[in-house]
Amino acid sequence: MAQLRLALAQVNATVGDLGGNAEMIRLWTAKAAETGAHLVAFPEMALTGYPVEDLALRTSFVDASREAIEVLAADLDSDGLGELPVVVGYLDRAAAGTSDGDPARELPQNCAAVLHHGAVVARYAKHHLPTYGVFDEARVFAPGHDLAVVRVRGVDVALAICEDIWQEGGPVSMAREAGAELLLVLNGSPYERDKDDTRLELAARRAGQAECALAYLNLVGGQDELVFDGDSIVVDAAGRVLARGPQFVEDLVVLDLDLAESTFHPADVTEGVAFTSVTEEAAPPYAARPAPEAPRLDPVGEVYQALVLGLRDYVRKNGMSSVVLGLSGGIDSALVAAIACDAVGPANVYGVSMPSEYSSDHSKDDAADLAERTGLNYRVQPIKPMVEAFLTHLGLTGVAEENLQARCRGVILMGLSNQEGHLTLATGNKSELATGYSTIYGDSVGGFAPLKDVPKTLVWQLANWRNAEAEASGETAPIPPNSISKPPSAELRPGQVDQDSLPPYEKLDAILELYVAGAQGRAQLIEAGFDEAVVDKVVSLVDRAEWKRRQFAPGPKISALAFGRDRRLPITSRWREQDS
Amino acid sequence: MAQLRLALAQVNATVGDLGGNAEMIRLWTAKAAETGAHLVAFPEMALTGYPVEDLALRTSFVDASREAIEVLAADLDSDGLGELPVVVGYLDRAAAGTSDGDPARELPQNCAAVLHHGAVVARYAKHHLPTYGVFDEARVFAPGHDLAVVRVRGVDVALAICEDIWQEGGPVSMAREAGAELLLVLNGSPYERDKDDTRLELAARRAGQAECALAYLNLVGGQDELVFDGDSIVVDAAGRVLARGPQFVEDLVVLDLDLAESTFHPADVTEGVAFTSVTEEAAPPYAARPAPEAPRLDPVGEVYQALVLGLRDYVRKNGMSSVVLGLSGGIDSALVAAIACDAVGPANVYGVSMPSEYSSDHSKDDAADLAERTGLNYRVQPIKPMVEAFLTHLGLTGVAEENLQARCRGVILMGLSNQEGHLTLATGNKSELATGYSTIYGDSVGGFAPLKDVPKTLVWQLANWRNAEAEASGETAPIPPNSISKPPSAELRPGQVDQDSLPPYEKLDAILELYVAGAQGRAQLIEAGFDEAVVDKVVSLVDRAEWKRRQFAPGPKISALAFGRDRRLPITSRWREQDS
Repeated sequence: MAQLRLALAQVNATVGDLGGNAEMIRLWTAKAAETGAHLVAFPEMALTGYPVEDLALRTSFVDASREAIEVLAADLDSDGLGELPVVVGYLDRAAAGTSDGDPARELPQNCAAVLHHGAVVARYAKHHLPTYGVFDEARVFAPGHDLAVVRVRGVDVALAICEDIWQEGGPVSMAREAGAELLLVLNGSPYERDKDDTRLELAARRAGQAECALAYLNLVGGQDELVFDGDSIVVDAAGRVLARGPQFVEDLVVLDLDLAESTFHPADVTEGVAFTSVTEEAAPPYAARPAPEAPRLDPVGEVYQALVLGLRDYVRKNGMSSVVLGLSGGIDSALVAAIACDAVGPANVYGVSMPSEYSSDHSKDDAADLAERTGLNYRVQPIKPMVEAFLTHLGLTGVAEENLQARCRGVILMGLSNQEGHLTLATGNKSELATGYSTIYGDSVGGFAPLKDVPKTLVWQLANWRNAEAEASGETAPIPPNSISKPPSAELRPGQVDQDSLPPYEKLDAILELYVAGAQGRAQLIEAGFDEAVVDKVVSLVDRAEWKRRQFAPGPKISALAFGRDRRLPITSRWREQDS
Repeated sequence: MAQLRLALAQVNATVGDLGGNAEMIRLWTAKAAETGAHLVAFPEMALTGYPVEDLALRTSFVDASREAIEVLAADLDSDGLGELPVVVGYLDRAAAGTSDGDPARELPQNCAAVLHHGAVVARYAKHHLPTYGVFDEARVFAPGHDLAVVRVRGVDVALAICEDIWQEGGPVSMAREAGAELLLVLNGSPYERDKDDTRLELAARRAGQAECALAYLNLVGGQDELVFDGDSIVVDAAGRVLARGPQFVEDLVVLDLDLAESTFHPADVTEGVAFTSVTEEAAPPYAARPAPEAPRLDPVGEVYQALVLGLRDYVRKNGMSSVVLGLSGGIDSALVAAIACDAVGPANVYGVSMPSEYSSDHSKDDAADLAERTGLNYRVQPIKPMVEAFLTHLGLTGVAEENLQARCRGVILMGLSNQEGHLTLATGNKSELATGYSTIYGDSVGGFAPLKDVPKTLVWQLANWRNAEAEASGETAPIPPNSISKPPSAELRPGQVDQDSLPPYEKLDAILELYVAGAQGRAQLIEAGFDEAVVDKVVSLVDRAEWKRRQFAPGPKISALAFGRDRRLPITSRWREQDS
C-alpha cells in the first residue's frame, strides 16, 4: 500500500481575474504545503474563473491564460513550493487541425495542468463538453481525447474534468484500463436544490467503474446566475465517503489516502494515455490525519446560503459594495433585505419605502419594522408627486396607471443608484416572473434579482427559516412576522391581492415546477390532478411572459431549469400549450 | 436526360403556428401544382417555424409537430395535391437509444419529410448541428446519420438540411456515392451583411463535390433577432447559377432542370442510404420555362429591407399592430420612424416628441418635420413637470439627473404603450449599445430595438439610402436632412454632443467591428493602426457595458457576431482587454 496526503482546495475564483486567481492559488498551495500534502488540486478553470463563456473565443484571453499558467508554475517554485505537485484548471487551446471547418484554427479547450518544479509537466483537456441547461461548452471548446495519468509518490492519479464523469465511457473507463489508483476530478458544478445527493451517488458509481478512489473537487462562489457550492467529496473504490468539504465556503480538504502502489509501467502505456512520472518513490509510512467530513445544511438552509453567496459575489466581483432596494412591507422585499444584510452587511444596504395612496398602513409599518430589525439604512419617499405629474399630462388609467406607480418607484431607485453608487436589487420572485405578474421597468428594475429563481412558497419557507435561525441563536429575527403572515398584494389599486390575478401560490408553484422545470405538457399536468382551467391559465401566462423574462436582471439559480440563460425560448411564438 | 420541374417555396413560417404554417404549405403547394411542378420543397422546419429553440425540449410540442406532418400529408391529398411530392422541414424525434446518458430518451431531431399520396413516404434527419453564433442545435437536437434519396420522375434527389453542407463530409459525400442527380438543401439561414456571396460560393463548391445540381432553398421572415432573407439559389454540377429567388419576400421559384436519368438501383443501396421511389418514370419531354433570376439588392438596401422585415414580423407575429417611439429630432429615431412606417404603415406609428429644457429648437422642429414627411401620428409631451417632481424630492445631480430625463421619457412611452396597446420601439443604435452610451430603463426602454445591430455610421448610410430611394421615385424623402447633417447629441445637459464621451463614430465603428465581430484583441487593434488611447477607451467601454446589453430589447441581427443571444459574455468579469 502507498499513502497519499491529498489536499483539495475548494476555492472561489473570479472570472477573468488571472492575476488574482493566481495569487489565490499560490496562497492555498502554501497552506497545503504546511499540512504536508503530497498533491494539491484546484477546481475546473480555477485560473481563469468559470464559466468564461464567449471570452474563450477571444484569442488574447486564451493567450493570457496560457501565459499565466507558465508564470504560475514559476512563481510557485519561487515561493519554495516547487516540490509539491499542483493540479490547476485553466484555459488552453488545441493544436491546429482540430477544427472541422478550418484546419488552421486552434480551438480553445477546457484544460487541467500539473505544475511541478516550476514547469507544466502534464496537461489534460476535458473530453465531454456539456451543452444543455446553463452549459454551452460545445459552442466554445474543442474536446480532448487523451487521458493524463501522473504518478505522485508511487501512486497513479488520472485526471478528469466535471462532465467527463457524467457521461458513460471516456476518462472513467480509460482510468480503469490505465490502472489508476485515484481519479481526480476538477469540477465547476453549480448548486441545484432538490437534487438529493446526486453527486455522491455519481462519484460512488464512477469510482466503482474506474476501480479506484475518486476525488470530486468543486468550485465555490457566485458567478452571474450560477452559485458553486463546494461540497467536495472523496470516495473509495467501493463508493464509501472518505471525506467531504463544507458547502458554500472556501476550504482546504486534506485527507490521507491508503492506495495500492502502482503496478503500471510506462511501457504498458496504451494509446491515448499520456503518462508522467512526478515522484516515483512512495511516501514513508506516517500516521494519518483524521478525515474531515463537513455536515450538510438542511434543504432550506442551503438555498438561503446559495442566495447570500450569489448576491455577495455579484456585488463584490463587480467592484461594488452597497445595494439599494424598495421596501414595500411585503415578504419578497423583506427577504431580499435580509439576504442583502447577510451578504454585504446592513450598513451597506439602503432600503426605500415608497408608499402610494393605495399603500396600507401595515405596509409602511412593516417596512419600518424591517429596517429596525436589520439595522439597514432606511428612508421614506412617497411617490404621489411623481405619479401625479404623469397622470395629469397623460391621462393613464387601469393597468397603465398601475404600472405607472411601479415605474415611478423604479425611477427613484435607479436615481439613488446613480447618485449614490449602489447596485439596485429587484425583489420579484420566480412565481411572479414566470407568470409575468410584474411591471417591466417597474418592480423588475435592478441589476440583480436575488429571488429570480425562488418560487413564492419557498420565499415564505426561507423567511421562516432565517427567523428561526436568528431566534435559535438569540438574535433578533430580521423579517417582521406580519410580512410573513399577511396575504400578498401589489397594492397598485384599492383592495388588490395577488390571488385576484393568480391561482393560490401552492397550486401555482406546483404547476410551474412541472411545466417549467419538468417541461411537462398540458395533458400531463391535468393527468397529475390539476384543474384544467387553472392549468390553462398558468401555461397561458407563462407562455406570454417570455419577453418580460428576457429583460429581467440576472439572479442566483437554484433549480434544474430556471428562467434565464439556461432556458431559451422564442419570444415570438404562436405555440399555445393549452391547445395541445 | 430527364427533365424535372422543381418548385422552391421560400415562405415565411411562424414559430409555433403549426396550423397556420400547414395552411401556408397547402396554399403554396397548390400554386406549385398550378405551374405543373414535379416536386415542391419548403424550407427547414417550415411546419414548426425556425428556430424553435427550447420548445424542442417540450414533449407536447414535438408530438404536435409529428401529428401535424401526418395531418398535412392527408390534407394535401384531400386538396387533390397527393400526386405532387412535397418536401417539408419539421420537428420529429429520434428512436429511443440515441441519448448518451439515458437510453430510453427520444431526442428531438431537425427533420425533413417527403409527403406523397397522403402519407409520409421518406424522412431525413439533419446530420450537422450548428452550435455557434445564433445556433444552439447541439443543445436541443440529436444528429441524424442516414441519407434520404427519393426518386421523382426518374431523377434521384438527395436531401440535406442547412449546416449539412457547411461542414465537410456527411450528406454531400453520401449524395455523390449514392449517385444523386440533385441535392435539395432546406435552409433556415439568417441574413448577414458584408458576407459577399458566401452561400453561392458554398452551393457551387458543394455541387462540385456532390457531382450533381444543388438547390438551396431558404426561409423568409423575421423571428425575434433573426431575419431570413430567402435568396434561394439553384446551381448545376459545375456551379453555374440556374435560378435565384428574390431577397426578403416570399416567392415560388420554379425551374426546369435537365438532369441525368438515374442509374442507381435499389439493390445498390449502400449502408446509411434510405432510398424511396416516388415516381420511377421520367416526365415526357416538354418545353422548359424561362428560369427566374431575381436581381440582388445593393449592400445598404438589403440591410434596410432586413430591418423592415424584422420589425414587421416582430409586430405581426406577436399579434400587435402599432408601435410607439420617442422622436428626438435626431437621426436614430428618424431612421427608426422611417423603418416603422415602411413596416407597419404610418397610420400605425405613434411618434412622441418629449422635449426637456436642454432640447434645442432644431430638435423640436426636426421631429415635427419628420412627422409631416412620413404622416405618422405625432404628439408633443414636454418632460419638465415629471423631471421636476423627481428632482424636487430626490436632489439628483450629474449623470443621475441626465439619466432621470431619459427615464421619464421611458415612463411616458411605456404608459402610452400600456394605455393604447402599441409596441414600444427603442431607438438606440449598436455603437451606443456596445459602449453603454445609453440610459438603462431610459432610452433603452422598448420591446424591440430596430437598430440594435446597426452601427452609427451605417445609420447615416441607411437614412441617405432611404431618402434617395424616395427621391428617385418622386416621393417625399422621409428623413429630415437636418437630422442627417447635424452633430449627434443626447441633449441631456447644455451643449452636450456624443463626441464629448465617444471617439468619432468612423473610428469607433471600425474598432467595434474588429473587437466585437472579429474578436480581435488590443494588440491586433493597435497593430491595425488605431491609436492606443482610443483602443483602450473603446475596449474598456465595451467590456463594462455587458449588463446593460443583457437588458436590451431584441432587434434584427444583421452582422456575423452581434450583441444579444449570439454573443454570450460573463457580466461579472475582471478580464481587462487593455491589460492584455
